[in-house]
Amino acid sequence: MTAPSDRTEVRRLPERAVYDRETIHAIVDEALICHVGFLADASPVVIPTIHARIDDTLYFHGSPASRMLRGMKKGTEVSIAITLLDGLVVARTPFHQSLNYRSVIVFGEARLVDDPDEKQLALKAVTDHVTPGRWEDSRRPSEKEIAGTLVLAVPLDEVSAKVRIGPPVDEEDDIELPYWAGVVPLSIVPGAPIPAAEVDWPAPEYLTDYRRPV
Amino acid sequence: MTAPSDRTEVRRLPERAVYDRETIHAIVDEALICHVGFLADASPVVIPTIHARIDDTLYFHGSPASRMLRGMKKGTEVSIAITLLDGLVVARTPFHQSLNYRSVIVFGEARLVDDPDEKQLALKAVTDHVTPGRWEDSRRPSEKEIAGTLVLAVPLDEVSAKVRIGPPVDEEDDIELPYWAGVVPLSIVPGAPIPAAEVDWPAPEYLTDYRRPV
Repeated sequence: MTAPSDRTEVRRLPERAVYDRETIHAIVDEALICHVGFLADASPVVIPTIHARIDDTLYFHGSPASRMLRGMKKGTEVSIAITLLDGLVVARTPFHQSLNYRSVIVFGEARLVDDPDEKQLALKAVTDHVTPGRWEDSRRPSEKEIAGTLVLAVPLDEVSAKVRIGPPVDEEDDIELPYWAGVVPLSIVPGAPIPAAEVDWPAPEYLTDYRRPV
Repeated sequence: MTAPSDRTEVRRLPERAVYDRETIHAIVDEALICHVGFLADASPVVIPTIHARIDDTLYFHGSPASRMLRGMKKGTEVSIAITLLDGLVVARTPFHQSLNYRSVIVFGEARLVDDPDEKQLALKAVTDHVTPGRWEDSRRPSEKEIAGTLVLAVPLDEVSAKVRIGPPVDEEDDIELPYWAGVVPLSIVPGAPIPAAEVDWPAPEYLTDYRRPV
């Protein structure tokens, strides 16, 4: 269990709060992107980016020219949201309309990863997070490419999850109303791989059979 | 065209920047959720929430007990990211690995919506944003329910979009390498509606034929 800090303690609908590490890790690992919030000139900025997890560390990367990453070099405070949508919750009244979801919120300080070995591990993790097996089936980045990538790390310490599952929760008086109620499940579905112009052979199995969670 | 402000001007990969209002609106309307960034005790916080657009205003809502909304009552500065994932971009090297996406970033001040008519219009917009047609096919919220919902509005003025489409862009020297390259398209697919326990009739067509974009 991860003890909730004052910030990660879920105040709203606490029955939806989940703190166990296994659930948190599963959400982080299934999501393709996260949304990173930070301050730029004292104003909030939110940016989507690809991430990956190694043990209890969240990594993300980008170009040294990125405004977000540039500003984070010196240990910027960040808040990171990772959100999976699982379904539309259709209630008898809009007041109880909702979504089924699994979400994680992280608070922490972003650390610039300097060590080339940790950097390479992080880039491998990010690659295999999006497309498991791809690192082994691609050209390794050169030293120059690794040097030309900024990698940031945030500890998954101050972290919490919220999960909503199941049917709508309607007012008792509304149950008899003639409105359909229930859930429409949602999932992310991959299509058939589209080869680049120069590629005339079939895509590897890890892409033709692609699915989330892995 | 929306003239980019200093903050919304896309500095990285400017060829991906899109400022026309139609593209921005289409992304906002297709996405089911947004990620709202704001300051709480001078620290960044990012929270996912359902939104809707009416003309050039973005609305979102929640309980008066919500920490986010409570803190925003007085015109808090926010940054809102709206992100659609369209595909995995599989390049010959992890350095060029990417995602195809369409994203919008909004900066602005959140305004608390007090007027009950505007509030009701916003709640209708949010309901029909997620499930078009549902407002007409549900019990209208009571005055008490409307009073018990906080609605916030952010103008879509300081706003920009970024769009990445198409195949990977690899180094010329890498094109001959024996690694498959291309795109795996991704889409959000609805499943068959699951009725609540008390519902023994078929779901309405706007749910059995659910799709995004509408």
